Amino acid sequence: MNLDNVKGTRDIAGEDAVLRRRVIETLQRVYEKYGFQPFFTPVLENAEVLKTKISDEMLGLIYEFEDKAERKIGLRYDLTIGLARFAASNQTPMPFKRYQIDRAWRYESPQAGRYREFWQADIDILGVESAKADAECLACVSEALESIGIKNFKIRVNSRKLLDEVAKSAGLQEREKGKAFQIIDKMDKIGKREVEKQLQAALGKEKAGKFLASLTGKSEKSGKTKRSTDDLDDLRKYASMYGISGKIEQDAMLVRGLAYYTGLIFEIVFDGKGKEGKRQSIAGGGRYDDIIEKLSGKKIAATGISIGLDRVCEILKGKGREGKERGEGESRAEGEGSYGASKSITKYYLIPISEEQRGYAIDVLKDLRKKGFNADIALLDRGPGKSLEYASKLGIPFTILIGKEEQKQKKVKVKDMRTGEENLVSVKDLK
Amino acid sequence: MNLDNVKGTRDIAGEDAVLRRRVIETLQRVYEKYGFQPFFTPVLENAEVLKTKISDEMLGLIYEFEDKAERKIGLRYDLTIGLARFAASNQTPMPFKRYQIDRAWRYESPQAGRYREFWQADIDILGVESAKADAECLACVSEALESIGIKNFKIRVNSRKLLDEVAKSAGLQEREKGKAFQIIDKMDKIGKREVEKQLQAALGKEKAGKFLASLTGKSEKSGKTKRSTDDLDDLRKYASMYGISGKIEQDAMLVRGLAYYTGLIFEIVFDGKGKEGKRQSIAGGGRYDDIIEKLSGKKIAATGISIGLDRVCEILKGKGREGKERGEGESRAEGEGSYGASKSITKYYLIPISEEQRGYAIDVLKDLRKKGFNADIALLDRGPGKSLEYASKLGIPFTILIGKEEQKQKKVKVKDMRTGEENLVSVKDLK
Repeated sequence: MNLDNVKGTRDIAGEDAVLRRRVIETLQRVYEKYGFQPFFTPVLENAEVLKTKISDEMLGLIYEFEDKAERKIGLRYDLTIGLARFAASNQTPMPFKRYQIDRAWRYESPQAGRYREFWQADIDILGVESAKADAECLACVSEALESIGIKNFKIRVNSRKLLDEVAKSAGLQEREKGKAFQIIDKMDKIGKREVEKQLQAALGKEKAGKFLASLTGKSEKSGKTKRSTDDLDDLRKYASMYGISGKIEQDAMLVRGLAYYTGLIFEIVFDGKGKEGKRQSIAGGGRYDDIIEKLSGKKIAATGISIGLDRVCEILKGKGREGKERGEGESRAEGEGSYGASKSITKYYLIPISEEQRGYAIDVLKDLRKKGFNADIALLDRGPGKSLEYASKLGIPFTILIGKEEQKQKKVKVKDMRTGEENLVSVKDLK
Repeated sequence: MNLDNVKGTRDIAGEDAVLRRRVIETLQRVYEKYGFQPFFTPVLENAEVLKTKISDEMLGLIYEFEDKAERKIGLRYDLTIGLARFAASNQTPMPFKRYQIDRAWRYESPQAGRYREFWQADIDILGVESAKADAECLACVSEALESIGIKNFKIRVNSRKLLDEVAKSAGLQEREKGKAFQIIDKMDKIGKREVEKQLQAALGKEKAGKFLASLTGKSEKSGKTKRSTDDLDDLRKYASMYGISGKIEQDAMLVRGLAYYTGLIFEIVFDGKGKEGKRQSIAGGGRYDDIIEKLSGKKIAATGISIGLDRVCEILKGKGREGKERGEGESRAEGEGSYGASKSITKYYLIPISEEQRGYAIDVLKDLRKKGFNADIALLDRGPGKSLEYASKLGIPFTILIGKEEQKQKKVKVKDMRTGEENLVSVKDLK
């Protein structure tokens, strides 16, 4: 039988699962500290809702099918669609702040770090038009990233309103505008020269020049080196109150999925040093004040940001590897940057030397668990050597050997698996 | 547009989401304390794997479809199938202990507390034949249930091996055996008299009588009042070491999905007092030593147990309501049985009296969050009255009003939303 995973999906086990568990737990803690509420929406949505023109590009990527009663349903392609449907069909006190850390599905070509079944960690605020909400989201996501050990990042911001103004002042038609935005959106991938070339092909030389100049703020009209709009000014003001101004960079070239956003847009870029190398996008978001209205006619302002959890875990895994290569891995297991380093969620592994000691070993085990320690016990009848090997493979830091003598003395022999050091200690002194 | 949820699915928001979040967190903590590792398998599996004859009844319930490349795939119907596929296709140190708290899908008739998209909280141990593994699972799940506030439960156990022996000693043919087991499995629903009637219809009067007598241990042959097998005896021995014997009841009538299990089987039954009324099954599991072999030819012993998370949350919600009716809800918010009582995940809600105080209010907010408190701030320009109303609706226990005077004195006015009591305190004294 073919036991491969479905294309674009995977199992997450061992160290990778421990890392992911810790990342999710930390993100939850920070999100909740910022007043975002837990929230769960279904994986399955009606196709009609999924296909509401939230994003043209997305239509071809939806996992869609019929259930046994021929209802057209599908798997959600992001966590926002369920939120929007919920807000459109329920009365809920506003503002509604919620987070979701969960899966979504897109039928894309799988690549390194990109899966068809993928995880996102979203925060959103509904019901607030002001940039206060955007600043709150950005402050939260900044602390969340720092808390999982990603510190070297920038928050690129721009505004759809500014982009529209620029296009208008360069005399672009609606159709030209769409094309022009698609082209500048590729700046990171294709470079400035190619963007210029493509813009000239799409708009003609004169318009392209005017558009680019206006975009970068060098037009005669603007008078400033950087163009701005009210929403960007407000965001700057509130970001400064939150103390995150240093992370924020205005980027006139930032576009992000045109069909979706209505005002401020964000992209968080991780500046990888060492092996991860290049800048990579790890989160994105912005204002989507029109989506709920499109679903239901109810106008509800909305903003939010979404961390790509798979990407972030890949980066942390790389950091862990680097740390280990620099010899930092083990000693930093509890502290900063520990996410990639610590391999096991279990602290103690108990090994009764023979079956006669099992009863006493289980007493020790119960005691450890009562104290809140993650502790496990050998369940197979194999020699202590094999059990030690097993604990080592799993990366469990301490083993506890329990023989006749230990039982008699009401003690245990603790072995530090990293140093090999052994100590005879009283059960009550275990910590 | 039809904004209904897909049939059998639902959104979980507000108090329900807070409750679920706490339950999941507690289960994770206990599972990890027992050495079960985090583990994530995909929602999507290949149809061929899903349809491996793990359980006949399940075949008709699978959400199955073709992806855009006409691959036959489907949504998992439980969390065990991904685990079994993983173990069949990967080398992993044995024993492999893992937990998963996640969703699965079955095309069943939705009922109160039963959804087509549902949650399970599983622990499993692969690679251990002995009842040591079963006892470890039962000890873990007992503590997990107690930790979320469910104490009034029994663990019914039985063994497939015993059932087979009984059927043999009553002279049942293979086909008769299947029928007979299906009938006694309905004991809880249809009662003893009806079981007897149906058994007589299926087996004839004489065989039915022999079978029932043998099942309940009253046969001449057995000589004991309760029949047993080695695996049941072992389970009793280890359960006693773990101190959970008092929770365990042997139930000769327990069958649980014949096609699946090979040895010991378990069912945890909650004994509802008050409104929840009747006994309800909240978890089930057992030995499935053959599944991985069916997938891959690799023989790997396996046992596990799965808590029905939706059912358990419903029970806790009911307990919360009851507690409130008895006037316990609020005062017990932090302690035992608090799962249904505490409505909000946010502790403090900050309300700047006017926009001039926003900067100072955000300073207070940053300070609270730095201390680890869950704190939120009013983001809409509406009067303090409306903001207080909002905090009350969300069940936030404390509001903090910040006006000119407070700012000048570097203080804040804290309002206990339950008692209405207000206190002027220094920011540094907030706790």
